[in-house]
Amino acid sequence: MTNKDVRTPASSQTGGAPAAPEGEQPREAGKSIGWHKGYVEGSRPDLRVPVRQVHLTNGQSVTLYDTSGPYTDPSLDTDVRRGLAPLRENWIIARGDTEEYAGRPVRPEDDGIKHTSPRGGLRNLDAVFPGRPRQPRRGRPGEAVTQLAYARRGDITPEMEFVAVRENVDPEVVREEIAAGRAVLPVNVNHPEIEPMIIGKRFLVKVNANIGNSAVTSSIEEEVEKMNWATRWGADTVMDLSTGRNIHTTREWVLRNSPVPIGTVPLYQALEKVDGRAEELTWEIYKDTVVEQAEQGVDYMTVHAGVRLPYVPLTANRKTGIVSRGGSIMAAWCLAHHKESFLYENFEELCEILAAYDVTYSLGDGLRPGSIADANDAAQFAELRTLGELNTIAKRFHVQTMIEGPGHVPMHKIKENIDLQQEICDEAPFYTLGPLTTDVAPAYDHITSGIGAAMIAWWGTAMLCYVTPKEHLGLPNRDDVKTGVITYKIAAHAADLAKGHPGAQEWDDALSDARFEFRWEDQFNLALDPDTAREFHDETLPAEPAKTAHFCSMCGPKFCSMKISQDIRREHGGTKAEIEEGMAQKSREFAATGNRVYLPLAD
Amino acid sequence: MTNKDVRTPASSQTGGAPAAPEGEQPREAGKSIGWHKGYVEGSRPDLRVPVRQVHLTNGQSVTLYDTSGPYTDPSLDTDVRRGLAPLRENWIIARGDTEEYAGRPVRPEDDGIKHTSPRGGLRNLDAVFPGRPRQPRRGRPGEAVTQLAYARRGDITPEMEFVAVRENVDPEVVREEIAAGRAVLPVNVNHPEIEPMIIGKRFLVKVNANIGNSAVTSSIEEEVEKMNWATRWGADTVMDLSTGRNIHTTREWVLRNSPVPIGTVPLYQALEKVDGRAEELTWEIYKDTVVEQAEQGVDYMTVHAGVRLPYVPLTANRKTGIVSRGGSIMAAWCLAHHKESFLYENFEELCEILAAYDVTYSLGDGLRPGSIADANDAAQFAELRTLGELNTIAKRFHVQTMIEGPGHVPMHKIKENIDLQQEICDEAPFYTLGPLTTDVAPAYDHITSGIGAAMIAWWGTAMLCYVTPKEHLGLPNRDDVKTGVITYKIAAHAADLAKGHPGAQEWDDALSDARFEFRWEDQFNLALDPDTAREFHDETLPAEPAKTAHFCSMCGPKFCSMKISQDIRREHGGTKAEIEEGMAQKSREFAATGNRVYLPLAD
Repeated sequence: MTNKDVRTPASSQTGGAPAAPEGEQPREAGKSIGWHKGYVEGSRPDLRVPVRQVHLTNGQSVTLYDTSGPYTDPSLDTDVRRGLAPLRENWIIARGDTEEYAGRPVRPEDDGIKHTSPRGGLRNLDAVFPGRPRQPRRGRPGEAVTQLAYARRGDITPEMEFVAVRENVDPEVVREEIAAGRAVLPVNVNHPEIEPMIIGKRFLVKVNANIGNSAVTSSIEEEVEKMNWATRWGADTVMDLSTGRNIHTTREWVLRNSPVPIGTVPLYQALEKVDGRAEELTWEIYKDTVVEQAEQGVDYMTVHAGVRLPYVPLTANRKTGIVSRGGSIMAAWCLAHHKESFLYENFEELCEILAAYDVTYSLGDGLRPGSIADANDAAQFAELRTLGELNTIAKRFHVQTMIEGPGHVPMHKIKENIDLQQEICDEAPFYTLGPLTTDVAPAYDHITSGIGAAMIAWWGTAMLCYVTPKEHLGLPNRDDVKTGVITYKIAAHAADLAKGHPGAQEWDDALSDARFEFRWEDQFNLALDPDTAREFHDETLPAEPAKTAHFCSMCGPKFCSMKISQDIRREHGGTKAEIEEGMAQKSREFAATGNRVYLPLAD
Repeated sequence: MTNKDVRTPASSQTGGAPAAPEGEQPREAGKSIGWHKGYVEGSRPDLRVPVRQVHLTNGQSVTLYDTSGPYTDPSLDTDVRRGLAPLRENWIIARGDTEEYAGRPVRPEDDGIKHTSPRGGLRNLDAVFPGRPRQPRRGRPGEAVTQLAYARRGDITPEMEFVAVRENVDPEVVREEIAAGRAVLPVNVNHPEIEPMIIGKRFLVKVNANIGNSAVTSSIEEEVEKMNWATRWGADTVMDLSTGRNIHTTREWVLRNSPVPIGTVPLYQALEKVDGRAEELTWEIYKDTVVEQAEQGVDYMTVHAGVRLPYVPLTANRKTGIVSRGGSIMAAWCLAHHKESFLYENFEELCEILAAYDVTYSLGDGLRPGSIADANDAAQFAELRTLGELNTIAKRFHVQTMIEGPGHVPMHKIKENIDLQQEICDEAPFYTLGPLTTDVAPAYDHITSGIGAAMIAWWGTAMLCYVTPKEHLGLPNRDDVKTGVITYKIAAHAADLAKGHPGAQEWDDALSDARFEFRWEDQFNLALDPDTAREFHDETLPAEPAKTAHFCSMCGPKFCSMKISQDIRREHGGTKAEIEEGMAQKSREFAATGNRVYLPLAD
């Protein structure tokens, strides 16, 4: 990212450590971390795009994309019980096309509390989340309030300008990509706290991290902290896959504190409402859940509407059947009733609901392969064709749409996935889980999938859903979340490089310059994970610069024989003899310095 | 690998734990690890190919490639001070084309001990390594004793048969690939302890792990243990990159205890002999070092003969100059003397030496790129063209040859590397370090490079040199070595799958079957790293099978509605009504079982 006019909060001008996120121990006092939060201003004072400003010891600075939200700005007083400031509120109100309304009453079963439960009874949400500030909002009748609708009519919204600054591209490019359905800008009108971001193949590849209180004991504050932790390491969106109790309240806290888009799978909560019995699900229960979540501000929703009754038999001979939770729930429902999926049958009505709040579709791949053997099979591609059909319908309703993809796919079958998806779904953004390139490495599936993720992102996938080392084995802890995010940021950035994304290589170049010039602190501060890089270095390496050999260090930075000899050749068109005399002269000078070579530790 | 006639050592028939390698704590008694060492016999009784035999709880077994050597065979009494049995000795002697001879006297400076050192004086090697059993051996005058020479004249050696069994291919395929120079079988006549393996694109992708006592304090036993540890996790070859003191003795111990080929960079030891002063290197010192190492039994040697004087200026404008240690040493020498490289100038004589012992060339890429910015540049490809030229010369002398490759390369520039190498070097095996697909993640370079490694191996690279998390930062410890090997085994196996290597997918299928059927112990035992998979599972997951949803588990393994409905359709060509009645019937049966769905923890 080129160095624009970056404003920095006054208190961080001295390079002090950023505010520790909720629940994290502050760093040791006096340990400078060499970067701080900055902002790039857009065309209006309330449009300030956050960046991570890395200050190098050579006086230069590098500006990096920043997903960590207000938590890393020490000039802002964040309070998880109050929530974040509603940055976008005025933009939404100014458009005049939405209205506040009373909203759906929150019921005990929204939090997984049954009427018959002895612990039941309506809990007062306002007491649980004291800062909940607003009535829900939705589009006025007859108004199309999605970013897709605005883009189609030629409007560049403040949200579009925000992402244009963030991505360092022209706002018109943002508008065009959204209008064409090649990118989505997930911003529910009820999530004004968001710092807008964009998902599309012409932009930086994005990473999603999943969180969720699957364990009954995990507290609401812990979920907020997990979201915070994931975005601190670079997650661009977070999916809240909570199940069980307090599901509504947890989501409220997460949304009110999230600077990134929040995705959900409404089917999970709907299933909770029918006590886990898939066959008792109904369109009404599902629809009500979608409205509930849309009013809270969920930015995108995974909808497994492509798992159609006729496709279920296609999975019978698979090695690992149906591995998507949403997919298996819908297959179980279809099977129990021997009826077509209620999601597929009611898709147009669902579009109307999502359109009213500008919720983005993430059309789920419920029949994705769960093993190498099942990759690219009939069930998977049958569903993909249906997702293409649904994408067309969603666009009629101006609903922004992305398409989910696999899963487990060997390397030679990956490209077919993105090529087919792009063709069938009119280039709608692809959002893939990995893919995992082999089944044989449980405990290392962040790596088996990071390989596939990098490749499919290079070929056009817009967002990657992370996989942690615990995949297939257990619940990810804090370290697993970090490892998953970092691995996927590597995959995403490797893809940005391979796609030639403007400015992507500046980051690598800055780090490699620091490495070549033995500026260790700069190398750490520019690293994806400065903490671990510094720790590894301090563990084994002596303080003096003895690690990386390079030609120029032989002669010192000011005196590079080879460069000079090259200059002779180029600028003076010297004769062979002149060049050789130049070389011999440099050889004598080199010998005079002691002929010492900086040696690396490994070849 | 199909289940051939596998012999198992008597004492491990009950599935007992394998012998712990030297220095490792034995496992807890009674904890079955579900696999043991087996052997597949070839056409003669002294040709027994080791395999890892995994016993599944369903009575089946899976046979996997095994690199761990005799250390995991509890029926063998291994002793690091005695060394391994010389498996190949009779094969070598039977060929009658080599002879024992007195060999070069071992000198104090071979171990980095200077004549002037107060601690100097010749140490008695036999005292240090009591088991050193043999005079060195070399080809008789006029005899071509390399596997390449044998293959060219149509002979299938026991070594070739060994790898044919190991790779599950016809021995003639092995002979053909070696004869054509598309594969190498690194087996120094002085390393009879080796279990032969092959490196070539038609075979399983191989992984090399580097070890080396860069720290003065690391003991010889520690280096042997590191080698052992790396091969235990799947390293196919090990490079001993030791520098400093005891370099000769360390190598002796490593070789006498290594079941895998050992590679070295003789230039490192030669540099020690001139006290680290590159300009004092001479062809004579280098040549003497090569003979010294060849007599010990080094199987392949990295030779940076492609770093020619005219290429050095090409690196002057690079972002990170020369990052190969060998490359920078040779560049420094060329610069100091303003002369062409003595390795390039004396390459034919070097070929004669390597041929006499059947040492394989690994032609080093001293000008490989050290950053994304420098990938595929003029310096790199100029050297590659020279490596092609040297490859042709080496083949004239019947020296087996592979070619080393980068380095740091963004994804979109990777394929050009393998394509060009294959074209320029007549399809000689490519042996690459990664490549790293971005520079921005120090501490995670096993992952940045694992991505590139998987891709380049899919496209034809035959062996991958691992990168550990400590790359660029410090010295790898035991955990780093394991992480590096596992990451690279993932990359190699992902490539085997993508190349459609016969039998590769059987491993994935066996593991996925186990996953689908909730056979957790089988899943662990089939995993690349059973220990960590088991640990992660035990950490968070309840014992009951509640993790992976699949369609058939809805109805139980014996009763699969969808399969039955499919059978109706296929076998009876039923009418639509019949099929629907079948589905409805299954729906009723499903309801009768309680409509329960096994749900996974994440979508």
